Amino acid sequence: MALTLNETRKTKPDSAPLHAEIIAIGSELLTPNRTDTNSLWLTQQLNSLGITLRQKTIVGDDEQCLEDTLRDALKRTRVILSTGGLGPTEDDITRKVYARVLRRPLVFHPEILDRIRHLFESRGMKMSPNNERQALVPQDAEILPNPNGTAPGILIRNQDQVIAILPGPPREMQPMFTNYVRPVLEPLSGGLRLRQRILRVSGMGESAVDNLIAPVYQRYTNPATTILFNKTDIEVHLTATAPTEAEADRLIDEVAVQVEEKLGENLFAHQGETLEQVVALKLTVKGYTIATAESCTGGLIAARLTDIPGSSKYFLQGAVTYSNEAKTQVLGVPADLIATHGAVSPEVAESMARGIKERSGATIGVGVTGIAGPDGGTTEKPVGLVYIGIADDVGTTHRKLILPGDRERIRWLTSQAALDLVRRRYLL
Amino acid sequence: MALTLNETRKTKPDSAPLHAEIIAIGSELLTPNRTDTNSLWLTQQLNSLGITLRQKTIVGDDEQCLEDTLRDALKRTRVILSTGGLGPTEDDITRKVYARVLRRPLVFHPEILDRIRHLFESRGMKMSPNNERQALVPQDAEILPNPNGTAPGILIRNQDQVIAILPGPPREMQPMFTNYVRPVLEPLSGGLRLRQRILRVSGMGESAVDNLIAPVYQRYTNPATTILFNKTDIEVHLTATAPTEAEADRLIDEVAVQVEEKLGENLFAHQGETLEQVVALKLTVKGYTIATAESCTGGLIAARLTDIPGSSKYFLQGAVTYSNEAKTQVLGVPADLIATHGAVSPEVAESMARGIKERSGATIGVGVTGIAGPDGGTTEKPVGLVYIGIADDVGTTHRKLILPGDRERIRWLTSQAALDLVRRRYLL
Repeated sequence: MALTLNETRKTKPDSAPLHAEIIAIGSELLTPNRTDTNSLWLTQQLNSLGITLRQKTIVGDDEQCLEDTLRDALKRTRVILSTGGLGPTEDDITRKVYARVLRRPLVFHPEILDRIRHLFESRGMKMSPNNERQALVPQDAEILPNPNGTAPGILIRNQDQVIAILPGPPREMQPMFTNYVRPVLEPLSGGLRLRQRILRVSGMGESAVDNLIAPVYQRYTNPATTILFNKTDIEVHLTATAPTEAEADRLIDEVAVQVEEKLGENLFAHQGETLEQVVALKLTVKGYTIATAESCTGGLIAARLTDIPGSSKYFLQGAVTYSNEAKTQVLGVPADLIATHGAVSPEVAESMARGIKERSGATIGVGVTGIAGPDGGTTEKPVGLVYIGIADDVGTTHRKLILPGDRERIRWLTSQAALDLVRRRYLL
Repeated sequence: MALTLNETRKTKPDSAPLHAEIIAIGSELLTPNRTDTNSLWLTQQLNSLGITLRQKTIVGDDEQCLEDTLRDALKRTRVILSTGGLGPTEDDITRKVYARVLRRPLVFHPEILDRIRHLFESRGMKMSPNNERQALVPQDAEILPNPNGTAPGILIRNQDQVIAILPGPPREMQPMFTNYVRPVLEPLSGGLRLRQRILRVSGMGESAVDNLIAPVYQRYTNPATTILFNKTDIEVHLTATAPTEAEADRLIDEVAVQVEEKLGENLFAHQGETLEQVVALKLTVKGYTIATAESCTGGLIAARLTDIPGSSKYFLQGAVTYSNEAKTQVLGVPADLIATHGAVSPEVAESMARGIKERSGATIGVGVTGIAGPDGGTTEKPVGLVYIGIADDVGTTHRKLILPGDRERIRWLTSQAALDLVRRRYLL
């Protein structure tokens, strides 16, 4: 079982970590088409200060939900950041609920309203009366100027807690956080800095990775280790806190080097890189070139290999050959080979790889044939059956896969397996 | 400005809405790089049942936060959906906290463990002992089968409340919700059905679409109309509530037919289809075939065209030709044409399209050449300059684009423009 950030924290009371919570307010954030992105930017800011995010909550214009969430957060967490719900046309629940829960009555600030009125006048517009509520601020709070919009932000210190109420639009929220909230949080974090490194692993399941590396990471609480499944790969996240970033990196290095040794060639990325980034870099470094001949993946492997800037250095040519005729015409796969073994066979995969290697003059040729479904499967050759062929100057070889999932997943897994096969065979 | 779902709701107070909350569990969802996307899919499902999302909360492996959140939700909301935190290597806080808060002790189910063991054995793997905790289920709960993974889901009825505990991976969570949770929620939603239709538009901006169709949608509050920007396209969402789905569809039809007339050939999808789905369907219906020759998109257009089941009916061949040599060798683009006009030129785009059409025998040949960046741009030919060539039996033509954004965005926009050009020219 992987340790989590929180557990680590429990074992290190000396470097008592600072937690934060984010509350995003706005009914539009509860629709199927929108998601809160302010919290991602804020999380990055918090982490760089050594502050860990403990919970984030998205509420609509719903006083009960906001009140419950705020009360819970105040009981357990020192830093509370809230975004949104300060606009003039919205229900003014943010100011009202914060004032009520914190028992600080709202005070009208004529100077805020004057500023908003001037802002409108300078644009040749008339201020609407509902802007008046933007001049209400809880008692004994700091007013945070907003040069990019009408609503000022609000900063409240509640004993040792810091509560920042920020506007929703990123171009208003971000400078306000940077200028007025970050300086308040910096001294709280006790000078601690947080750094994270992501190792990525192919060809192993989550539990297998855990069993292999647990003897290493269990001896450390800083960095904390988390093991995650991400689409097709396993990720190992190492997160350390220390007085400086360099020291946090050193703590991570100590564990990473041991974890990397255990994982061996299953580890493909030391810094969170994607598999195509790793393959691209190593092909370039070794001066190898590659060409692809794809049937069931339909160009996906080529698209991933060319998604990297500078891909013309190593990617020579790709062919998408669905039909038997195209395999013969474009790649020179013998028609009788297809007739004898079928288009989805190790022989055809190898012949496709050989064909594209010879035509392109690449160091490595990759050929992929398989049944992505949903149709086309038989008892002997089911949906998910895939052959990956590899050809180089020495010879050809292939790998057989039986992959789970729907068409999209089979195609993705096939592209991942093909890239990983190239990596393991030529790029270690 | 487009109406939102909430505004519509205010105009229909007679339909007392059923609320839901979503709790997403997992420390990785509290990092700067990951966001919870399960809740977006679930929100769409809930809305289609006439259920409104009231709050969503993202917690890490933190028992206190999960417990507080769950207790609050139980006090105020009838439907609670939770995702994640059921994996074998994670802290088992999901099962433990739900069991504790709902006062239902965890019971070990040997039949669940047997199934997981068989699943591992069928893949030639050995089950790790930590999978045992996946066989723990709170007392008096329903076990929801998971054909796509190890962890079963859990459904708990608590007086008139429904609590569903689902796994995190979308391909496990989504079928489980559809098969076992949705049927339980359907009778709760008070007979009101919500239906949504998504129209998709290419080649127009958000305000242009709004100006064009506002005179239509402003006359209706049911369906509500929302205009959204989605990656490269504008979407028009029409959302209606009615006692039956047929009646809601009829309300949508009335507005949709008028909006569609206004949008004309800029409208490419009547039911939220992707552009490749529309192109695939229409190519198939017309009996046309297509072949692609790609430079800067590196196989992305082929990959999108073959992402549709049955693509072998219309997709004949794809070539990814980065180098000038490959363009000449594979597509027969004359070397002196490249020398005279440059690889990124209308002449070469048309010659690539002609070349792949002739070699493949397809009805339509598409050739794409451009500068995706970040390097390779000049003053005359900047990053983002793209030519799309089209060839058929009658002749060839091209379109010039200057696209904004980074490499990934330029590649995507190019693939979208190429597919849309084919649609407008051959498939209306």
